[in-house]
Amino acid sequence: MTRIVLVGGAGRMGQALAEGLSRRENLEVVGLVDVHEPAQRFSAPYYRSLAEVDVAVDAVVDFSRPDSVVTSAAWCAEHGAGLVVGTTGLGEVERDALQRAGERVGVILAANFSIGAVLSERFAALAAPYFERVEIIELHHDRKVDAPSGTSLVTARAVVEARRRAGRESGPEPTERHTLEGARGADAGGGVRVHSVRLPGLVAHQEILFGGPGEGLTIRHDSFDRQSFVQGVALALAHVNERAGFVEGIDHLLG
Amino acid sequence: MTRIVLVGGAGRMGQALAEGLSRRENLEVVGLVDVHEPAQRFSAPYYRSLAEVDVAVDAVVDFSRPDSVVTSAAWCAEHGAGLVVGTTGLGEVERDALQRAGERVGVILAANFSIGAVLSERFAALAAPYFERVEIIELHHDRKVDAPSGTSLVTARAVVEARRRAGRESGPEPTERHTLEGARGADAGGGVRVHSVRLPGLVAHQEILFGGPGEGLTIRHDSFDRQSFVQGVALALAHVNERAGFVEGIDHLLG
Amino acid sequence: MTRIVLVGGAGRMGQALAEGLSRRENLEVVGLVDVHEPAQRFSAPYYRSLAEVDVAVDAVVDFSRPDSVVTSAAWCAEHGAGLVVGTTGLGEVERDALQRAGERVGVILAANFSIGAVLSERFAALAAPYFERVEIIELHHDRKVDAPSGTSLVTARAVVEARRRAGRESGPEPTERHTLEGARGADAGGGVRVHSVRLPGLVAHQEILFGGPGEGLTIRHDSFDRQSFVQGVALALAHVNERAGFVEGIDHLLG
Amino acid sequence: MTRIVLVGGAGRMGQALAEGLSRRENLEVVGLVDVHEPAQRFSAPYYRSLAEVDVAVDAVVDFSRPDSVVTSAAWCAEHGAGLVVGTTGLGEVERDALQRAGERVGVILAANFSIGAVLSERFAALAAPYFERVEIIELHHDRKVDAPSGTSLVTARAVVEARRRAGRESGPEPTERHTLEGARGADAGGGVRVHSVRLPGLVAHQEILFGGPGEGLTIRHDSFDRQSFVQGVALALAHVNERAGFVEGIDHLLG
Repeated sequence: MTRIVLVGGAGRMGQALAEGLSRRENLEVVGLVDVHEPAQRFSAPYYRSLAEVDVAVDAVVDFSRPDSVVTSAAWCAEHGAGLVVGTTGLGEVERDALQRAGERVGVILAANFSIGAVLSERFAALAAPYFERVEIIELHHDRKVDAPSGTSLVTARAVVEARRRAGRESGPEPTERHTLEGARGADAGGGVRVHSVRLPGLVAHQEILFGGPGEGLTIRHDSFDRQSFVQGVALALAHVNERAGFVEGIDHLLG
Repeated sequence: MTRIVLVGGAGRMGQALAEGLSRRENLEVVGLVDVHEPAQRFSAPYYRSLAEVDVAVDAVVDFSRPDSVVTSAAWCAEHGAGLVVGTTGLGEVERDALQRAGERVGVILAANFSIGAVLSERFAALAAPYFERVEIIELHHDRKVDAPSGTSLVTARAVVEARRRAGRESGPEPTERHTLEGARGADAGGGVRVHSVRLPGLVAHQEILFGGPGEGLTIRHDSFDRQSFVQGVALALAHVNERAGFVEGIDHLLG
Repeated sequence: MTRIVLVGGAGRMGQALAEGLSRRENLEVVGLVDVHEPAQRFSAPYYRSLAEVDVAVDAVVDFSRPDSVVTSAAWCAEHGAGLVVGTTGLGEVERDALQRAGERVGVILAANFSIGAVLSERFAALAAPYFERVEIIELHHDRKVDAPSGTSLVTARAVVEARRRAGRESGPEPTERHTLEGARGADAGGGVRVHSVRLPGLVAHQEILFGGPGEGLTIRHDSFDRQSFVQGVALALAHVNERAGFVEGIDHLLG
Repeated sequence: MTRIVLVGGAGRMGQALAEGLSRRENLEVVGLVDVHEPAQRFSAPYYRSLAEVDVAVDAVVDFSRPDSVVTSAAWCAEHGAGLVVGTTGLGEVERDALQRAGERVGVILAANFSIGAVLSERFAALAAPYFERVEIIELHHDRKVDAPSGTSLVTARAVVEARRRAGRESGPEPTERHTLEGARGADAGGGVRVHSVRLPGLVAHQEILFGGPGEGLTIRHDSFDRQSFVQGVALALAHVNERAGFVEGIDHLLG
């Protein structure tokens, strides 16, 4: 049984993780840490800070704010607890703190804990050398203010990089006559086009389309709700205490 | 039994129509007219021009070149034969000729004889007033040199017009921050976005995506080969001799 | 401004409607009626029964239980308030009550208030006569215990009926050799096949696939959450007080 | 430059390969072998049998009939030419012949040379351990007489096997109440369901749908025409002369 504390446990992500992780065998949520009291506790005690935690802890999960990550790193190193971080917007200070903690305990940082998203990106990179042309369509709800999505940019970079390594280049852009300006989307490099659709009702979806002579291959990922992150965090927790060291991403944990 | 002559019968479209129409009950192909001999005759005699045709004809199907359409119109008016035209790029001269022929015989001109495409456009116009936002994705093979496709522009116009009539407007464009320029595609007016994907292997595909609170409606049309036009031409032939008059489109023939 | 009372306002559907309807212009939620107190009130007062309601009411929305519908019908007839009913499982007694109320006020009963679902079914019936073959794939989360879904059965019946009226029949079932029993799904009559997919993560989705020579037409509806019902209920409310009478479905309210 | 002879060069597949392979750099088609003369030669000479071939040959591609494969194997072993086989329906005799030839030259046998299909199967096996439930939908034209497709069975087996190795089992079948018999498709073992759609217009398509908490991952492969096999055959030709040995599948050739 791995005993875990959730830092940022009162936030939307923290609450979703508390609910999802507390349902899994082999995991026990022994504390929710946050500056505010959480709306729901899922039978775990609430602490205002990690310093207050007075029970045995095997690992800390941090989905909070950058400054909090530094505290979590120090606490984990001191208490011999693994650290899984999903907090975004980290700068050099925070990364240094994670690196130092990694000298004593296992530390896993990831931008995306959805296993479907991680596999999508891996498959896209594997397929990239074998098709003449690749385009990405990402579709999100209309409250998203940035386009294209961060995930689609990461995917596009992985595809472009895999094609470069394989010595594969897209041919010239096919469109010569634009009957309406802008329909071909954004160029992410190497001829890889990214299209962003924004519609109410949607959640978060991405299609990577590959085309070659007489055939097409499409990898589609749909995120319907935050529960999609629980599985990846649980996977990270299953491995974080195997050895000390700071690693990024959970791709290497997928066999 | 409707006896038909195909003008442009040696072209790629003409040959596909000759093959498809000659298989249908109630239709008999009694002549292929073209300046060149057709590769395949499908047991119909070949004529260099309509003037040479010496058998009884109920209707003429013209998929050729604009100048030829003027000749077909005159011939049909003189011989009391209905006229179905799929030739593109017609100017005022040709339309006048069709109009005049329409005073004596039935004349149907259409840009797209695919029933799936016609129904897609109709459904899109019907759905348009009921959703907050609409986007169109058209996907074609990478030999297509124009973007967006003509069909997607026609569809977008139908959607924009239906929304205007219903007093429906899209809210403001959601994207405020462009992490890569151009990902939001082309604006076809009224907030309707059009995205063009170009990949080898694809044929001709279009998705119209509607989004509202908690739901999405998608209308997708796939054209896999030219046979998709045969059904619409056969439908036009079934109605062209019902009355004199020049009409555009086959939408009104679908109940 | 239409003043409405929600019967069943403490249930999951009632709470979603209270939230969604209270946000719309021209609608004011003036009461939540239920046997239990609702978790959230959205600034509307709570009543244990319609009999307790002491404010002016233009229309009642009932998403509760069959027996409650009889009370709502009597109350609306007496108070001159329109009635919109989404409660399922109604028997003859309840329908009689709605019929009688319809002699004095407007009454609209519908099994599905999602506008996307209603349009899907309409489009499916319109397209059905023009394609050789139709199949339906419905996809739901894996907590759904019945298959195929009620909506897919209604859609299949509409398609079969439209084809019968048009004198259109599917050809013989193409599969002659079954390498694994059961892969062709359920036969809903007239050769229309229904396939049910059950996967965790999914919500409620349906695809109606039409195929003809060289082309395909697909109508896809995605329900992502209960908010998809709000728009249809609001549409019914906009029309329910136009005239007395009991009508089923909201299809006729879509222009 | 690899000089190749196509055995079965007059068949539909052989003609498609002759056209596709003769267009590629580094490949030269130096002979078409078949019992009938091919409709098109693509500037290669025609031979009634391999015994007649009198030019230097680096590799033989055999898409013909099982008995012919035995002859090709013997000829290749004798002439030091690699052998790429796509002929289906091989029995023990033919496989023994390929095995023996493999002692002297490179021999690659594959059921499917479409790179998209091969990658689909690989990705499906990689993803299989990470999702609670998997279903496969395969969609084909309505002239296909068997269901489910051979490819979907191979994919299902790969998925079931990958789940077994990972100790992953699907939970119990969710459907308890069948409102129409058969909608849940065929059970390919381990809870993996296979659904077969048959519609005119379609070519050959397959979707592998994975579902987990809050997310879905879909791998879709579309075969639009026979050209999809050319790329895989070219890949096999690029590797077949690297070493002696009989191998099945082209998966290992994809990095």
